[in-house]
Amino acid sequence: MSVRNDAETIIQETLAACRPERAVRRALAGKVFSPGRLLLVAIGKAAWPMASCAAAEQGDRLSAGVVITKHRHSQGPIPRCAIYEAGHPVPDDSSYRATAAALALVRDLSPEDTVLFLVSGGGSALFESPLIPPADLAALTERLLACGADIREINILRKRFSAVKGGRFAAACAPARVYAVLLSDVLGDAPDTIASGPAAPDPATCADALAVAEKYRLPLTTEMERLLRAETPKALQNVETVVAGSVKALCAAASEACRRLGYTPCLLTDQLCCEAREAGSFLASIARTHQDSAASLAFLAGGETVVHLKGHGRGGRNQELALSAAAGLAGTRDTVLFSLGSDGTDGPTDAAGGIVDGGTLAALAERGFSLHQVLEENDAYTALQAVGGLLVTGPTGTNLNDVAVVLIRR
Amino acid sequence: MSVRNDAETIIQETLAACRPERAVRRALAGKVFSPGRLLLVAIGKAAWPMASCAAAEQGDRLSAGVVITKHRHSQGPIPRCAIYEAGHPVPDDSSYRATAAALALVRDLSPEDTVLFLVSGGGSALFESPLIPPADLAALTERLLACGADIREINILRKRFSAVKGGRFAAACAPARVYAVLLSDVLGDAPDTIASGPAAPDPATCADALAVAEKYRLPLTTEMERLLRAETPKALQNVETVVAGSVKALCAAASEACRRLGYTPCLLTDQLCCEAREAGSFLASIARTHQDSAASLAFLAGGETVVHLKGHGRGGRNQELALSAAAGLAGTRDTVLFSLGSDGTDGPTDAAGGIVDGGTLAALAERGFSLHQVLEENDAYTALQAVGGLLVTGPTGTNLNDVAVVLIRR
Repeated sequence: MSVRNDAETIIQETLAACRPERAVRRALAGKVFSPGRLLLVAIGKAAWPMASCAAAEQGDRLSAGVVITKHRHSQGPIPRCAIYEAGHPVPDDSSYRATAAALALVRDLSPEDTVLFLVSGGGSALFESPLIPPADLAALTERLLACGADIREINILRKRFSAVKGGRFAAACAPARVYAVLLSDVLGDAPDTIASGPAAPDPATCADALAVAEKYRLPLTTEMERLLRAETPKALQNVETVVAGSVKALCAAASEACRRLGYTPCLLTDQLCCEAREAGSFLASIARTHQDSAASLAFLAGGETVVHLKGHGRGGRNQELALSAAAGLAGTRDTVLFSLGSDGTDGPTDAAGGIVDGGTLAALAERGFSLHQVLEENDAYTALQAVGGLLVTGPTGTNLNDVAVVLIRR
Repeated sequence: MSVRNDAETIIQETLAACRPERAVRRALAGKVFSPGRLLLVAIGKAAWPMASCAAAEQGDRLSAGVVITKHRHSQGPIPRCAIYEAGHPVPDDSSYRATAAALALVRDLSPEDTVLFLVSGGGSALFESPLIPPADLAALTERLLACGADIREINILRKRFSAVKGGRFAAACAPARVYAVLLSDVLGDAPDTIASGPAAPDPATCADALAVAEKYRLPLTTEMERLLRAETPKALQNVETVVAGSVKALCAAASEACRRLGYTPCLLTDQLCCEAREAGSFLASIARTHQDSAASLAFLAGGETVVHLKGHGRGGRNQELALSAAAGLAGTRDTVLFSLGSDGTDGPTDAAGGIVDGGTLAALAERGFSLHQVLEENDAYTALQAVGGLLVTGPTGTNLNDVAVVLIRR
């Protein structure tokens, strides 16, 4: 068995351990709901497997459900549930129709009823009921991005122009109880930031929203002005929230898989957020430093790196991170570094990430690739493909961000 | 005692442990030289303390010596030694005169004689005897830099136009023995790269040198052409080399100081070489991840980061690394990150580096600093100064690159 085989095993076991079904099963284990009706609303890229598992677990106890996932992400019927596929990352009419169905489902409930609300990444686009014309909302977002507004500021406004974001979905469920099971794809796992927090109090106030509008001198209709002054829920007594999966769980699963293969795991961080290529250099320097270790070591860094696109090549942040490490790893022995997007799709490619070792740089040179030039062109996919450095898993059905792992086998 | 006090203590103890005198004393301990004459040649920014220590240790055993250091770096007379101060980073006439004195000192030695050769960072400029007119050499270097040649390529040529670089000084000492004691300021500590390797075989061949000249279409005089074809030493039987200090030693000293204060040290790397600001973000994400640790932890990363200048502010790579971590550290408790240049001068400033904690970002905002803008302007010095975040040690007399440390006190 080579260190490369170990990497394959670790990837498989990590993804298996992070299946959305497992997270839902853990979140429902021993959970007793009120004696009223049990309704299910599932949103996000992992809505289908989450809902499918919950429906199987709850059986006849489940009255009805609405499942909203990305186009081509449904895997078939789920008992008692209506399944909708909708647009992502840009909402479409299907998003609005599906969200209307979910809102209809939770109307006129009693305090004895429960909404089991299953949330995963992508929910922000898939679950939307705009209070202003969708075209106006799109124009507003575009303008904010052009002005250099950050995602936090954009979300402060978007929550106010939505009937479901910023805690308003949970408010619509009241007086019924809401049990929210979240798979987090955002660093820090703050419930109000996952899928724009349909069941989480909004920490931003009217004053915050008006300040953003003023800062960027947004042209507002009377209706938009009114909506900015309508407060979002600041407390939700009917909601219980559990973060059932996140990059922390991804890192923990990868650590455990490393340990099973005899590596001593060292979790560096589960909140990585720097430039992908610099993270690659940093991790390679860690690998070089520990070449003389007597024991097999694994260093793990989970999170979400960034890539600043300059070129016109193909790739993703995980591929760029891995490729960047090739220079620093050159000449190391029995050492690999891989970086994996847990959803199986890294950037706009069919790869989940990349894997490199001590021979990758030489292999690239042999095939005429200059590492510097490939990175300038953001073309990690092409270069990694040429040297067998792509990780291809297919869509995994989960979405817990990324993990990069250095394996040193001794 | 606060975590900030701990940082101050760790910095003091680390610098004390890395004094050049200690390194020289270790390198000379138990060392028995041949019965002939013992001559001393010391070059680099730490030449004075290294030579001073060696002279004290060897006493009457030392016949004579030449010490070449940077202007204003001599701290007084050393028995039996001539002391020269010269230009750095650009060689000047003093460099050439001093080097001529060193070459005269080692002429006509016997196999029973020994040259104790003490080398530290900066030696490349301070120790030079050009084989072509200095103005031609300067013009050549400038042209190479303008063409985008890298430092490795530039050094391949510079060694050939020098009477002392690339192993030629050791060749000039033959048949005497050379005992070379190196304080490394380059990552990896390859002796041929420290001060351009006056006592190390040159791994580059004539063919390599000619290829560089051709690649950049350098205009060559007949004499330069002849020098490119004159081979540098490929083996030096009369040399024994010991790397007595390096960033590894710096990291080890810092680790030990952390341990004495009750922190469990984790050496991440002693070969860090990525962007300063991204290293700061990476280290801050490590600090955040380990906030819930039950034990006090220290994460160390040594090496030499890079800064790509865009703005016109003041700063250095250590200050920029530390400042960049302020965002990620915001809100952490009993946690600091500092980054220290071991020579005490970080960039063109009077600071040795920077230190930040969980309150730095708020303190900056209070004084009207935007972290993003400060970094855009490469003005870390001004920002850190405003919040008490500068580390000021004065010149330390050593030069073992940088170390960044995250302290989490529990």
